Amino acid sequence: MKYGIVAFPSKKLQDVANGYRKRYDPHYALITPHMTVKGVFEADDKEIEHVAKAIREVANKNKPFELNVSKVSTFAPITNTIFFKVTENDELLALHKDLNEDFFGNAPEYSFVPHITIAQKLSSGEHDDIIGQLKMVGVDHTEIIDRIHLLYQLEDGSWTVYETFRLDEEN
Amino acid sequence: MKYGIVAFPSKKLQDVANGYRKRYDPHYALITPHMTVKGVFEADDKEIEHVAKAIREVANKNKPFELNVSKVSTFAPITNTIFFKVTENDELLALHKDLNEDFFGNAPEYSFVPHITIAQKLSSGEHDDIIGQLKMVGVDHTEIIDRIHLLYQLEDGSWTVYETFRLDEEN
Repeated sequence: MKYGIVAFPSKKLQDVANGYRKRYDPHYALITPHMTVKGVFEADDKEIEHVAKAIREVANKNKPFELNVSKVSTFAPITNTIFFKVTENDELLALHKDLNEDFFGNAPEYSFVPHITIAQKLSSGEHDDIIGQLKMVGVDHTEIIDRIHLLYQLEDGSWTVYETFRLDEEN
Repeated sequence: MKYGIVAFPSKKLQDVANGYRKRYDPHYALITPHMTVKGVFEADDKEIEHVAKAIREVANKNKPFELNVSKVSTFAPITNTIFFKVTENDELLALHKDLNEDFFGNAPEYSFVPHITIAQKLSSGEHDDIIGQLKMVGVDHTEIIDRIHLLYQLEDGSWTVYETFRLDEEN
């Protein structure tokens, strides 16, 4: 089964992201707006119990982090994916590191660019048409994220939450 | 903000339900297959912290329960909603009672018929066309549910998980 770990931003920021995703993201219906902190990995029913336990330990020792988005950016020309760029900070990087280095699943193939996707699978023409306007409208929002979620994927591609982990729960 | 409490069945049962929902349920993209244990209620950001704490206490004192579905049923003629009927048992009823009687939000207007919706908002013609076949195909599945999820609703109608609560976590 396929699993992943994400943080869901507040309703306010999700509603803003969905305003774009509804039009520009074919994954709109598969999952609500999110920032991925560990990309897709495979685990069976037995393994996931161990993984969940390990995530709980990571979550306990990491702190809530600030999620600040202040610009719209794009992965083009690598992929035509447009996103709210999340400003890096020590807490977020530490959490990402703990979930991706010497942790279950393969190490990520790319360096970590924390983001909330608002458009993807666009043709180059579509991408070039909208990127300028989206950048100009921009985004500016800050909040505290105090939990992460372990999800699994159904056959139709949609994602269900398996478990929530509060950051820094012990304190 | 609108909140609700559900149990998500295993991937296996969700995939079966989605096979029908994809065709027959306009809420297909808004939430993955689920059994509601507390219907929609309103809470503000402050209230939900108290509610979440209360749900945690309820979850701690309740036990994991068996989720058995063995027949397809319908709410017609009240509404043209078709569902996998979940067999009642003491653990499930106790959990529902704790979350709905003398708990946050209004008491439910209807008696509790635990179910996983597979079709809704059908015309009477559509309903009558498919109910016979769905009943004949039927369903037969049993599993243990050991967690419930508190969800909130976005402006577009989709649902995001706020927090997971393990049943009987203390033991």
